[in-house]
Amino acid sequence: MDEKRLRCSELRDKVVTADIAAKLFEDGMTVGASGFTPSGYPKALPLAIAKRAEYGEKLKLNIITGASVGPELDEALAEANVMNRRYPYQTDSSCRNAINNSEVHYTDMHLSHTPQWIKYGFLGKMDIALIEAIAITEDGYIIPSTSVGNSNVFIECADKVIVEINTSQPVELEGMHDIYNMALPPFRKPIPLVNVDDKIGTNYIQCDKDKIAAIVFTDITDKTRPVAPIDNISKKMADNLIDFLEQEVKDGRLPKNLLPLQSGVGSVANAILGGLVDSDFEDLVIYSEVIQDSVLDLIDADKVKFASGTSLTISQPRLKDFYSNINKYKDKLILRPQEISNNPEIIRRLGIIAINTAIEVDIYGNVNSTNIMGSRMMNGIGGSGDFARNGYLTIFTTESIAKGGHISSIVPMVSHHDHTEHDVMIIVTEQGVADLRGLSPKERAICIIENCAHPDYKEELYEYFNRACESKYKHTPHIIGEALSMHDKFMKFGSMRNLEEICQ
Amino acid sequence: MDEKRLRCSELRDKVVTADIAAKLFEDGMTVGASGFTPSGYPKALPLAIAKRAEYGEKLKLNIITGASVGPELDEALAEANVMNRRYPYQTDSSCRNAINNSEVHYTDMHLSHTPQWIKYGFLGKMDIALIEAIAITEDGYIIPSTSVGNSNVFIECADKVIVEINTSQPVELEGMHDIYNMALPPFRKPIPLVNVDDKIGTNYIQCDKDKIAAIVFTDITDKTRPVAPIDNISKKMADNLIDFLEQEVKDGRLPKNLLPLQSGVGSVANAILGGLVDSDFEDLVIYSEVIQDSVLDLIDADKVKFASGTSLTISQPRLKDFYSNINKYKDKLILRPQEISNNPEIIRRLGIIAINTAIEVDIYGNVNSTNIMGSRMMNGIGGSGDFARNGYLTIFTTESIAKGGHISSIVPMVSHHDHTEHDVMIIVTEQGVADLRGLSPKERAICIIENCAHPDYKEELYEYFNRACESKYKHTPHIIGEALSMHDKFMKFGSMRNLEEICQ
Repeated sequence: MDEKRLRCSELRDKVVTADIAAKLFEDGMTVGASGFTPSGYPKALPLAIAKRAEYGEKLKLNIITGASVGPELDEALAEANVMNRRYPYQTDSSCRNAINNSEVHYTDMHLSHTPQWIKYGFLGKMDIALIEAIAITEDGYIIPSTSVGNSNVFIECADKVIVEINTSQPVELEGMHDIYNMALPPFRKPIPLVNVDDKIGTNYIQCDKDKIAAIVFTDITDKTRPVAPIDNISKKMADNLIDFLEQEVKDGRLPKNLLPLQSGVGSVANAILGGLVDSDFEDLVIYSEVIQDSVLDLIDADKVKFASGTSLTISQPRLKDFYSNINKYKDKLILRPQEISNNPEIIRRLGIIAINTAIEVDIYGNVNSTNIMGSRMMNGIGGSGDFARNGYLTIFTTESIAKGGHISSIVPMVSHHDHTEHDVMIIVTEQGVADLRGLSPKERAICIIENCAHPDYKEELYEYFNRACESKYKHTPHIIGEALSMHDKFMKFGSMRNLEEICQ
Repeated sequence: MDEKRLRCSELRDKVVTADIAAKLFEDGMTVGASGFTPSGYPKALPLAIAKRAEYGEKLKLNIITGASVGPELDEALAEANVMNRRYPYQTDSSCRNAINNSEVHYTDMHLSHTPQWIKYGFLGKMDIALIEAIAITEDGYIIPSTSVGNSNVFIECADKVIVEINTSQPVELEGMHDIYNMALPPFRKPIPLVNVDDKIGTNYIQCDKDKIAAIVFTDITDKTRPVAPIDNISKKMADNLIDFLEQEVKDGRLPKNLLPLQSGVGSVANAILGGLVDSDFEDLVIYSEVIQDSVLDLIDADKVKFASGTSLTISQPRLKDFYSNINKYKDKLILRPQEISNNPEIIRRLGIIAINTAIEVDIYGNVNSTNIMGSRMMNGIGGSGDFARNGYLTIFTTESIAKGGHISSIVPMVSHHDHTEHDVMIIVTEQGVADLRGLSPKERAICIIENCAHPDYKEELYEYFNRACESKYKHTPHIIGEALSMHDKFMKFGSMRNLEEICQ
């Protein structure tokens, strides 16, 4: 046992093996687990729980996290058939398959809603908080590791707390967290955060020592995702977006150093942030969910002066360097609970530039971020809605085609709606930028088809739109029986292209 | 001229007739007009402007308001073909027809977005602010009449300000307004509003005297809408909703006096608020957009201790009594800018119970509030999204059928999405209540069909759902080519009923 990690002597007799701690989980329990992107999630315990189920025990759990977690949790529990319900976000392929096969009840939620739904009691009683930590303080308070997510809320609401102290996570992370708890209505007060770098809370999560039921030491590392190299398409999208931002500055609608940036995770997000390294922008700040490699690059390039997130998800090749130089970054990074990082109050106050990814976009500006062909869950809405609805500028990016050109990402009507026409300002594809601000639906349709659709699909889209404009009601022209016919065609023939083209 | 109404002597030479002031409007201008629900909107000037167009002048204007306004504005300008663009909400039948005939570009916006979009410059330059007032102070500041809406923002951003002093609106309204201006990012601060009755601003809208280009006196009254008597269906919905709220209190998820209530306008809203008069709830507070007759009833019955809104829309029969007893109500009512009444920061902080009306709801919990059969604009989303996304409880009400039973308000997929599955907690119809919190999409489908659908449509809905569950991807089961087939059937045959039933 490491006394620098477990500083509270009273709690030392709570240290047990993962297998012993795993026995605290009972069939039907609801578990709140730390973790946001594959960072800071519990690992030893979920593996031990899965083992129990694999040995034949009946054990079904409802799992709530911050956001996505690594394979030791989502993959292990999904494959061992332990998962009953899953909230609010996931990205694991085993878990996704279980959801789409109807083996797991998945509720896809705005990430800012989850913490308050738990506190309001809307998701039922929370039995166990399962939290990865870098250390426990003298007072029994818990210092999270590479993410905060909903850990503070789980600890507050759960009957019992189980801590995984992960020695692979450096103690130097201490001081990078800023834990601020929100009261419930009618006792809520304004959140005193006015600048991206304001510290408003504590370095640790307060916890009643008596609630800590077990402590497990582990050294299993975060399974952060590798960063894909930037491809040409992503580069074009990034260039289009940066051109747009430069024009906004020229037109006086954005200050020279922009406003705080939020960017989703993934290759396009990475290309966009990468593009900023080579841009003329300076003194940038980031107020986002996830701090990833490209943020470190921007700090190294002296482009970003501060970044706030709820998760630090640095790829394996970059991690060693980051940890060796952690003090260089430490005063430029902060990790907050997702109740704060994703809070509409803060997002609107700071005036975030929100950049998120769409699966498909329709000609009227609605966005599908979650369900492929209306039914197949990909990951979830995550925090995109928190930022999109409340951002100063709301931008969605998508490649104009998918599946080798058999899918157009621009469609007459999206097959699932996550962000409505009311919440979408700018669409960026590799083809160009559609600025929808102030446009009526019909103007949007032309703007999107013209600027964002792939040339192979423009004719098909115009053909639908023009025929729809002949209908009786012309505000949002649709031929309701055909609005989803491109999807129907794909489901039946494997392509959205016109049949004569497919047959050629 | 009334010196109690126009107290600034310097401005007295700005008083002109409506016809003279109307000449200040030029083709292509953008006009920000006061008004929210048919209250506090300019009347003499729009009528004079319409007259110019009717005499053959080419005059197209872009009209931005708080929300809906009365016929002197929307009807007159739509019928005179003066309206080019219209933001962000309307309820006028002439205006609606012009929108659906593609004669007016209408952009349907969240009401909390409009003020900041204007300040950000996203809707272009604002030429004229046209504001109804009860008086102008010694300093040239403007005291609004029965609504605030976006008036403070229009006055701040417009090149010129034209004031209609309406002597039909009592000067006793002075003191009921609370004008608070928000800075732009990155200079925004927390809004210091913590209780529904907090006064955080001034009684008047500050205005640079030099910007006031004309003042017109008028006595045309607000054309507020009559309150429909409560019918049986609305009464049943109200009863279902109140039963639900009582159960939430019993289960410890709501305090005894609930949390601040927001309720849309219309007969169901009226029935719900009416139902509260006879309920056991006490010490209620209201934080909404619109203060209507039923709020006065609740104050009279000693059920409501305070109501905050941005508009006071009292029906004609009730208005005389209200104005005679205005001092009785004055310390229980406050009118705020819609940038505050609809602000996500405040709505989430206070923990509002948001009650809004749906046109249709789908089996997965998505809500259409605006476009009938996907295309025909009814009114607009208004503030429903501001409250629904950020409320403590988010409730949508709809009668289970429409058009004499030929339309089911519960459908496999809504034909237009305003509130997604992520933003909808509770559905109430006259049939019952569906509590969707924490449910997966498939569980929601059963819950909604079982509790909310009309018996005549249950079989048809189950039939679709069960077949959809046989599809390959089972997260949000759909047969994408048939998801909108009930709407298609209605468009083709005038009924969503199964063909064999229609033919019987």
